Amino acid sequence: MSAQGVEVAPWGPPYLLYLGSAPDDLSIKTARGLAYWRPQWCLGQHRRDDCAVTLGLPDVGLAQSRDNGADTMVIGVANAGGVMSPEMVADTIAALEAGLNVVSGLHHRLNDQAEIVAAARANGRALFDARAPQPGLPVGTGKPRAGRRLLTVGTDCSVGKMYTALALERSLRQRGCPADFRATGQTGILVAGAGIPIDAVVADFISGAAEAISPARGDHGWDLIEGQGSLFHPSFAGVSLGLLHGSQPDALVLCHEPTRRHMRGLADYPIPDLMACMEANLAAARLTNPAVKPVGIALNTSNLPADEAQAACERIGALFGLPCQDPVSMGVEAITDHLIASFGN
Amino acid sequence: MSAQGVEVAPWGPPYLLYLGSAPDDLSIKTARGLAYWRPQWCLGQHRRDDCAVTLGLPDVGLAQSRDNGADTMVIGVANAGGVMSPEMVADTIAALEAGLNVVSGLHHRLNDQAEIVAAARANGRALFDARAPQPGLPVGTGKPRAGRRLLTVGTDCSVGKMYTALALERSLRQRGCPADFRATGQTGILVAGAGIPIDAVVADFISGAAEAISPARGDHGWDLIEGQGSLFHPSFAGVSLGLLHGSQPDALVLCHEPTRRHMRGLADYPIPDLMACMEANLAAARLTNPAVKPVGIALNTSNLPADEAQAACERIGALFGLPCQDPVSMGVEAITDHLIASFGN
Repeated sequence: MSAQGVEVAPWGPPYLLYLGSAPDDLSIKTARGLAYWRPQWCLGQHRRDDCAVTLGLPDVGLAQSRDNGADTMVIGVANAGGVMSPEMVADTIAALEAGLNVVSGLHHRLNDQAEIVAAARANGRALFDARAPQPGLPVGTGKPRAGRRLLTVGTDCSVGKMYTALALERSLRQRGCPADFRATGQTGILVAGAGIPIDAVVADFISGAAEAISPARGDHGWDLIEGQGSLFHPSFAGVSLGLLHGSQPDALVLCHEPTRRHMRGLADYPIPDLMACMEANLAAARLTNPAVKPVGIALNTSNLPADEAQAACERIGALFGLPCQDPVSMGVEAITDHLIASFGN
Repeated sequence: MSAQGVEVAPWGPPYLLYLGSAPDDLSIKTARGLAYWRPQWCLGQHRRDDCAVTLGLPDVGLAQSRDNGADTMVIGVANAGGVMSPEMVADTIAALEAGLNVVSGLHHRLNDQAEIVAAARANGRALFDARAPQPGLPVGTGKPRAGRRLLTVGTDCSVGKMYTALALERSLRQRGCPADFRATGQTGILVAGAGIPIDAVVADFISGAAEAISPARGDHGWDLIEGQGSLFHPSFAGVSLGLLHGSQPDALVLCHEPTRRHMRGLADYPIPDLMACMEANLAAARLTNPAVKPVGIALNTSNLPADEAQAACERIGALFGLPCQDPVSMGVEAITDHLIASFGN
């Protein structure tokens, strides 16, 4: 579960997923990702009376969850600004007192709150902020390294780059090929148990962090690196470019949400043309890996009826001459087939 | 000296430039930049007995410098790793005790060293770390804003992007056009008295920092924004791209060092083709400003004889159909002429 060179987490599953007073599905994106990709780690959910959503897991109290075998409570809910409410702070302290470690993907760090740090110390429990990068990251070297790497890139933020990388990890492993998901965001880090929140590192170290996430490997396996942002997103493209250069990907999968009308959060910026987006990513990737190849398109079709989703995949697949699938509703077997056909077993 | 929205420095000139035990010219790059661009602010230099270089300024002691009217000592020397030696710490404390503020562009921050912080408090003096970005930077919005902006971009790091932007500021001001240099690195910040060290901000905020550095202006003047790195530098391209997007430049000047054989620090990466580099910068800049235009090429010809320097400028200028000059040895008047011809007065 941990990449060579990336610190192993001092906390771990089984998990209790804290949903608190979550008002809607978007706010529990982290908990949902964890429950979807690592159901075997998730023993239950903890909700306040005014919580408006559910993951369908058993509702359990803190002490009961500890008795059931949970080691760690995951704060899997985000509100605007990523700040912890007084209720969340109180529940976090109660969890520590019940004997659970606590991990969080919020901007507002557990380790920056004296009350929470004191409760963790008093109860001998661990705190982990998934959005805090480890200190001492190196500057990127651009040096070629052993191993095979695939990076998921996107037309926009939140189009399925993490789901696609995780689906490819599962598919390759099922075929007996060594494969490791490499996490670059808070949800991915909680799913993988390791990783670096690439958007939170100091700007000079973006590509160095990407090199650290996916170190040299000699087993002919694949690193499936979680992409972030988009080269065409005016707020975050620097992160995407540094990640692309540091990853030195052999293969790219382009991720896209076909009903999206503008870049996330920016009503005046249209979604880029798919072909132009692929070309820009390939051109930039060639700087550190001239042999990079596109191997597929991943569509997030959750907002389309099934027949339109199928038609969109066929149309876009034909345009690129590459497999095009929705990793959640259709799987990624055709993309995996093409990856293996292009690079060997 | 300060951009709207960018904090005004609590320290300022006149300056004493601290060179310490500097072994070579490269190590006093910050002090040299300050002495070159703001000679009127620099009253003297302070050197230890083993200092191997000089700026040609009067050598003065700490107390004497205070008596001469200096307000602030600038640590204008860097060693490998940007760490302060015990001698530098002792000299810094002595400067504070002599009544000087102290500013530094080193990675090793003044404000992180308890002894130095205590001496500043005890003597009522200010400390300023030019490499520490201010907290609370916004995420980039990509929203068009008033004003005219020129960004210097480069084939590599350390090819003259700061010198070119400062030379254009001086040239435009001499012609009566409002113009402000906008600093993005530690030396530039000390020269300007304000700015944001763009390579030290958290990755998610690169373009937001660039927007903050060059806010809307309504006086028909120019912001001359100091570029960083290169889109073709595998270690730092993310910084360069975020800065390009956030700057929304109307005009680009491409900076180049014609004797450089490989990317700085990376022997296996060749310098990019000049035309490909300009095209890549224009293509990326169009995302946030579709009307961006190239207005000139700035060559750092310090490693060439004068006749070869002149020939290189003529050859490259003809290739692009743009003025090409060395800002230090030839000035930037032809580039300024072309800027005004392209955009009006």
